[in-house]
Amino acid sequence: MATNDERKKVIGIDIGGTNLRGALVSRSGSIIKHLSVPSQADNGIDLVIENLGNLIDEIRRGQTIDGLGIGIPGIIDSARGVITQAPNILHVYNYPLRDVLIEKIGRNTAVFIENDANCAALGELWKGIGENVNSLVLLAIGTGLGGGIILNRRLWRGADGMAGEIGHMTISPDGAKCNCGNTGCLETFTSAVGIRRMVKEGLDDRTVRTSLREKVQNVPKERLPEIVREAAVEGDKFALWIWEEFGRALGMAIANLVNLLNVEMVIISGGLSNAWELFIDKAVDEAKKRGLRAPMERVQIKRSTLGSNAGLLGAAYLAIRKDRG
Amino acid sequence: MATNDERKKVIGIDIGGTNLRGALVSRSGSIIKHLSVPSQADNGIDLVIENLGNLIDEIRRGQTIDGLGIGIPGIIDSARGVITQAPNILHVYNYPLRDVLIEKIGRNTAVFIENDANCAALGELWKGIGENVNSLVLLAIGTGLGGGIILNRRLWRGADGMAGEIGHMTISPDGAKCNCGNTGCLETFTSAVGIRRMVKEGLDDRTVRTSLREKVQNVPKERLPEIVREAAVEGDKFALWIWEEFGRALGMAIANLVNLLNVEMVIISGGLSNAWELFIDKAVDEAKKRGLRAPMERVQIKRSTLGSNAGLLGAAYLAIRKDRG
Repeated sequence: MATNDERKKVIGIDIGGTNLRGALVSRSGSIIKHLSVPSQADNGIDLVIENLGNLIDEIRRGQTIDGLGIGIPGIIDSARGVITQAPNILHVYNYPLRDVLIEKIGRNTAVFIENDANCAALGELWKGIGENVNSLVLLAIGTGLGGGIILNRRLWRGADGMAGEIGHMTISPDGAKCNCGNTGCLETFTSAVGIRRMVKEGLDDRTVRTSLREKVQNVPKERLPEIVREAAVEGDKFALWIWEEFGRALGMAIANLVNLLNVEMVIISGGLSNAWELFIDKAVDEAKKRGLRAPMERVQIKRSTLGSNAGLLGAAYLAIRKDRG
Repeated sequence: MATNDERKKVIGIDIGGTNLRGALVSRSGSIIKHLSVPSQADNGIDLVIENLGNLIDEIRRGQTIDGLGIGIPGIIDSARGVITQAPNILHVYNYPLRDVLIEKIGRNTAVFIENDANCAALGELWKGIGENVNSLVLLAIGTGLGGGIILNRRLWRGADGMAGEIGHMTISPDGAKCNCGNTGCLETFTSAVGIRRMVKEGLDDRTVRTSLREKVQNVPKERLPEIVREAAVEGDKFALWIWEEFGRALGMAIANLVNLLNVEMVIISGGLSNAWELFIDKAVDEAKKRGLRAPMERVQIKRSTLGSNAGLLGAAYLAIRKDRG
C-alpha cells in the first residue's frame, strides 16, 4: 500500500495574470516536473481554460495522477469548486471551474481549487518555512496584498472562503483611497499599488528631490517596484523612505494580527518580498512597538523559503489532503 | 446512560474584580442555582481562593458534580491550568489555579480554567445569540475591551492562550497612549478607560460646553460611563460625540475582523454594551464603510443575549466538553 501510495502523484497549478505554472508533485512533496505557459488572462476565461487543459495534459502524460489542485487569485468557493470573483485576472464571476475541468480532463482526477494566497500558506506549511509550526499567517505582497491563515495546521477559509483579506486592514484611517472603497488600507502602502501611489505623490510634489524623476520615465508600471528598489539600494532618500513606509504599515498589520491570533509565525512572501532588506527592520520595529509583549516575543517573522513555488506546492497539498474545507 | 448523564451537573464560575459569580448548570445548559459573593480581589489571591472555595462548596452541596469551569480576566494557560497574568484583578503571575483548587475541592472534580472573554464567547455559542453559527467573534466591552474567537464552533486560543486581544488593535496610529504601551488602541476609545480619557480631554478644553462639567464632579470613576450615557440620552452634544467616537472605533475594528476572519457573527457584550443604542448605528456605518462588501453583508452584528451570564455558562460548557484546548 505504501509503495502504491507513493507511486501516485498529484498536480499543483498556480494561475497567475501572466503565466500558468504547473508541477507534477510526489506525495512527499518533491517537484518531479515543472512547466510554465502564458495564461493569456486578458483574452478571457475560455483561452485560459484551453491553456490550462493543455498544461495539465502535458504534465500528466504517462503518469498516474491522483488529484489536481489549483491556486487562483480571487475569492474561491472551494467546497463547490467555483471562482466567486477574480477581478484582476479572469473577469469571471461564479465560474464553475471544477466542473469545467472535470469535463475536460475526466472524472478520474479529483479537482481542488483555492485562493492563491491560501495555497501559498499551505505550501509553506507543508514544505517551507512553516513546516514545524501549528499556526501561521502568510502575507503575499505583489500587485496587491493577499493573506492566508493557518490554524491547527488547517486553512481558516471563513464562512464563505473570504478570510485572510489582510490587504484591506485599515492602517491610516484618513489615508489614501483604496480600490476597495475604504481609505488607508494596508494595500495602499504595502504592495506594488502602494508603491506606485507613493512614487506618484512624491513626484507631484516639486520639492521632493529624487533620482526617480529620471528613472521612472517611460517605464511600464509593472517595473516600478524594481526601479524604486534599485534607487533605494543606491541610496536615494525618497526611495528609502518609500520602503520604510511600506515596512511601517506592514509592521502595524503584523502587530494587529499577532494580538488577535497569537500565531507562531508570520511569513512574508510574494514578488515584493525580494526587497526584504529594505523594509523588514522597520516592519519589525513597528510591530514590536505596537504589539503586546508576550505574543510578539513568541512570533517568528520570516521570509518565504519556497518563493514562487509555494502556491503550486500548496495546491498540490490540497489534492493530497483531499481538502475542500 | 442518558438519564445518568443528565443527572450529572457542572459548575460555572466567573471571577470578576468585584464579585465571584457561580452557578450550578445542567448538561443542557439550564442554570439551576446561582450565587454571587464579593471577590475581595484587592486583598490578594489567598482571600480570593478562600472565597472561591466557599462559593464552590455552597453550590455543590448535595449535588453530583461532573466538572468545574472558571472564567478569569487575564492571560490563561488552559492546558496547564495556570493563570499566566491577571494584572487588573489578582496581581498574580504564573499562578497554578487548577492545582490549588484540586487541593481544596478534591480530585474527583475536573477543573477547567479559561480567559473570561473566551468563556463569554463560548457561552453565547452554547446558549446565546451564537447558537446557530459556526464562527463568531465576541467583544466584551467593560473597563477594557477583551475578545473571544470561535472558529468551527471551537475556541481559537492561539499558540499561548493569548489570542483575541482585540482591545489592542491600532485604530488611530498617532492617538492617545494606551496602558499596553501602544498608541491609539481600540481600547483607548471603546471601553470605560476610553470614555474616561475622552471626558477628561473634553473637560480640559474650556471651549467644550457640556453638562458633564457639573455631573462628573465627586463621582467615582467606575460610575463615569453611566453618567456619560445619561447625559447623552438627555441630549448633551459632547456626551453624544463620545459615544459616536466609541462606535466609530468599534466599527473600524469590526471591519478589520470581518475582512480577516470572514466570521458569521460579531457579538457585542460586557457592561458597556448597555449603551447599545448610543453607539451601534455609528459602529455599523463605519464597519460597512471600511469592510469589504461581501463578508460585511454576510456578518451579523448582534448584542449579547446572555448578558452577565455568558461567562459562567461558557465556563460550564468548558467542563461539559472537557475542553482544555
